[in-house]
Amino acid sequence: MASPASPYPAGSAAFPHRGLVGIAGLASHEIRFLLDEAEQWVRLNRLPQKRDDRLSGLTIINAFFENSTRTLLSFELAGKRLGADVVNMQVAQSSMKKGETLIDTATTLNAMHADAIVIRHHSSGAVQLIADKVDCPVLNAGDGQHEHPTQALLDALTIRTAKGEFNGLAIVICGDLMHSRVARSNILCLAALGAEVRVCAPPSLVPSGIEAMGCTVFTDFDKALDGADVVMMLRLQMERMTGQFIPSPREYRHLYGLTQERLVRAREDALVMHPGPMNRGIEIDSNVADMADRSAIIRQVEMGVAIRMACLDVLTRKVRGTEGWQ
Amino acid sequence: MASPASPYPAGSAAFPHRGLVGIAGLASHEIRFLLDEAEQWVRLNRLPQKRDDRLSGLTIINAFFENSTRTLLSFELAGKRLGADVVNMQVAQSSMKKGETLIDTATTLNAMHADAIVIRHHSSGAVQLIADKVDCPVLNAGDGQHEHPTQALLDALTIRTAKGEFNGLAIVICGDLMHSRVARSNILCLAALGAEVRVCAPPSLVPSGIEAMGCTVFTDFDKALDGADVVMMLRLQMERMTGQFIPSPREYRHLYGLTQERLVRAREDALVMHPGPMNRGIEIDSNVADMADRSAIIRQVEMGVAIRMACLDVLTRKVRGTEGWQ
Amino acid sequence: MASPASPYPAGSAAFPHRGLVGIAGLASHEIRFLLDEAEQWVRLNRLPQKRDDRLSGLTIINAFFENSTRTLLSFELAGKRLGADVVNMQVAQSSMKKGETLIDTATTLNAMHADAIVIRHHSSGAVQLIADKVDCPVLNAGDGQHEHPTQALLDALTIRTAKGEFNGLAIVICGDLMHSRVARSNILCLAALGAEVRVCAPPSLVPSGIEAMGCTVFTDFDKALDGADVVMMLRLQMERMTGQFIPSPREYRHLYGLTQERLVRAREDALVMHPGPMNRGIEIDSNVADMADRSAIIRQVEMGVAIRMACLDVLTRKVRGTEGWQ
Repeated sequence: MASPASPYPAGSAAFPHRGLVGIAGLASHEIRFLLDEAEQWVRLNRLPQKRDDRLSGLTIINAFFENSTRTLLSFELAGKRLGADVVNMQVAQSSMKKGETLIDTATTLNAMHADAIVIRHHSSGAVQLIADKVDCPVLNAGDGQHEHPTQALLDALTIRTAKGEFNGLAIVICGDLMHSRVARSNILCLAALGAEVRVCAPPSLVPSGIEAMGCTVFTDFDKALDGADVVMMLRLQMERMTGQFIPSPREYRHLYGLTQERLVRAREDALVMHPGPMNRGIEIDSNVADMADRSAIIRQVEMGVAIRMACLDVLTRKVRGTEGWQ
Repeated sequence: MASPASPYPAGSAAFPHRGLVGIAGLASHEIRFLLDEAEQWVRLNRLPQKRDDRLSGLTIINAFFENSTRTLLSFELAGKRLGADVVNMQVAQSSMKKGETLIDTATTLNAMHADAIVIRHHSSGAVQLIADKVDCPVLNAGDGQHEHPTQALLDALTIRTAKGEFNGLAIVICGDLMHSRVARSNILCLAALGAEVRVCAPPSLVPSGIEAMGCTVFTDFDKALDGADVVMMLRLQMERMTGQFIPSPREYRHLYGLTQERLVRAREDALVMHPGPMNRGIEIDSNVADMADRSAIIRQVEMGVAIRMACLDVLTRKVRGTEGWQ
Repeated sequence: MASPASPYPAGSAAFPHRGLVGIAGLASHEIRFLLDEAEQWVRLNRLPQKRDDRLSGLTIINAFFENSTRTLLSFELAGKRLGADVVNMQVAQSSMKKGETLIDTATTLNAMHADAIVIRHHSSGAVQLIADKVDCPVLNAGDGQHEHPTQALLDALTIRTAKGEFNGLAIVICGDLMHSRVARSNILCLAALGAEVRVCAPPSLVPSGIEAMGCTVFTDFDKALDGADVVMMLRLQMERMTGQFIPSPREYRHLYGLTQERLVRAREDALVMHPGPMNRGIEIDSNVADMADRSAIIRQVEMGVAIRMACLDVLTRKVRGTEGWQ
């Protein structure tokens, strides 16, 4: 979508002029640019004094319409470490359900002169709806079953840190593909970066047409794992664990859980990933999740703060009048 | 109450020595002073770098005993943009219901050396009770059916910005006058500033003796609107919508909702206001609320942050040893 | 436990290498050092400009798995006044109950590069469990029926400020000794400091073997009070008020409530203390709690912020490369 000559044309739909609503619409060089930017924040965050003041005086509002302790913490730390004034609006457990429309909430936040709004919402498309109504960049922190772009970016950074380039990597994403915004964003991101993406789920949880996103579909986890460089497990949502979609958690683990025995089918140095929080003993066994040399699960959390710092920095460059990426 | 010779005598009950508990007790020049002060913050808030450090090192506690996402956000941003350390205590959804008395809570906050305490409480008079027990200024962010002074100030600033002076302006306030602290504070404020205040409600929702506050009472909305310069709609609380006070939301809209047809009775350039959150299609129609040239609803939110910055600044001048308003 | 020659040996279990999990394991000179350190913060907090930047750029996470408005506020203010980036994670009312293990939560917080984690948890031992899994110091803000060390330290500072040295002081702790982490930490702390500690409770609420912690047990409150210098009342938890442990609140007050008549048995200048929030008219009468010259209850709150500042400062000295206490 971006031409080689003019790398950041006005037509770049999702980024950065209107924020970061999804991986869809990002060119691969835009993704790589964000990964490159994040590396300075990985280094900063490992120092005792992890503060940069480039967002000083800017206002970031984290508007979470759906509970998410760890994603909220990650965004809050990212904003504060960049020196911004950060305020959280946790609607799920609060009162802004007085019948106000989502658009009225959005224009209210906008009128308080936010410089970036981070939104998590239970409805697919809610973030785009808000982004269309406000003047500042909007970051999607997960909307319904649509996208969770910063999760995909932090996963990509984790993989790149461990494996180098994406070309030639076979990456398996296993779990509830039907309902997972993490899966959607990751497929789009990793495919754009040139990896071979294999997705795997019980037949009842494979959305039709998913191949068009740039992946190969498996329903046999053992086959999907064959020679894989990265195994990314998805969280099984409690509400899907009974009936309709899977027979039982025990059955699920038997067929789609990442066990030590099963991991042998992947490459000897295959990386194990999970976006958290984990259901230990269901989609992933503890002895796999805790492998010191192979599991990148803790590293993913660390990369999360860095990626969010990169996004907040890059998306607010225009308002700060900073040269470079606009 | 303030004599011309000594503009800020010790006897000025509500402000600023004990904080801002209500509009009642404020002299009109005190109101005007706060509006004047707020204008610098309106300008600052429109800049990318909207930070002033005059409250650096001061502690502001937002103690909200009643849920209010947008008012809390507004106060939190106001404090942070002035450089204060801001902490929120959201009691409605928390644990300080262990049987502790309100006064014990107040003295506890005081012992933590707050420099200003912002309070929202469901009981009328609770804010004054707390103000009497603490050493620092207390700001009323809404108490029961008593007052909501910063709402009235932000409304006055919005009107002044659009219309200039208050003398000669006919301002209609329509809705649940009986239970609305917004109405009370606005009547007191606008009457003190010299406007002609018309209030309008169903007969069951007109408190007796309200005329003594300086307004004219209407029960026919069409008549109240005749030649009005400003139309301020009040939010209809859900719990009043059935039975007792009004027959039904539909009936209410028919008689007291601001529709496009009805607005024609006001002046051609009449300003439309609502404190939010709106019940679209009940007390106000969407095509009125969203009129780009007439609706000031979004502007009210913007003025809210500026007014709260002005109040926090002015009320903490004494502790900061700053000359001027004391 | 610490030898005079080498004051801070590697074997000092609880402090400061792994944070502050309990008073148990602290040497008396370590306790005194923290009290001494806190005094500068008592002075700073009384100034309008109460900000020190020594923790600038450091991240403090307050992870509260159990509701506690006042303790959370106290820690939040302590961190902010030292210039740290403070984030709160209130799990009790949030979502991190998705089945994630406590250890996974701990390693997640750790991966975000916290420099200190403050934890309140309803299970005894949970804080130590977390402390063993993270790289940064952990502060116990109360865990189950185990310890609440900063409460004991703030109580000790309050007593020292009023009474000078601890030798020769008779201190009564009265209330639910069985379930109180406040009592446990206070007994350990005050005994280590050289005071005579008398504990008093209904027989059903005296844990067996409590004398081994360095105190004398009473079940008759009048006898315990005889000639006491300090009377520290414990909060009676609502859930213990009926049946099993005490017959009724009224009966409890009759035998173990601090009334004006009963206080006469203590020394004329005996200090009255309570960790708050108080059940007025049950464990303590209002005319005692509010004695201007004798009650230190408000002072305890003030000392709380100072003690927490001292702990956060001292515990992060190692990561900040500061000389002195390591």
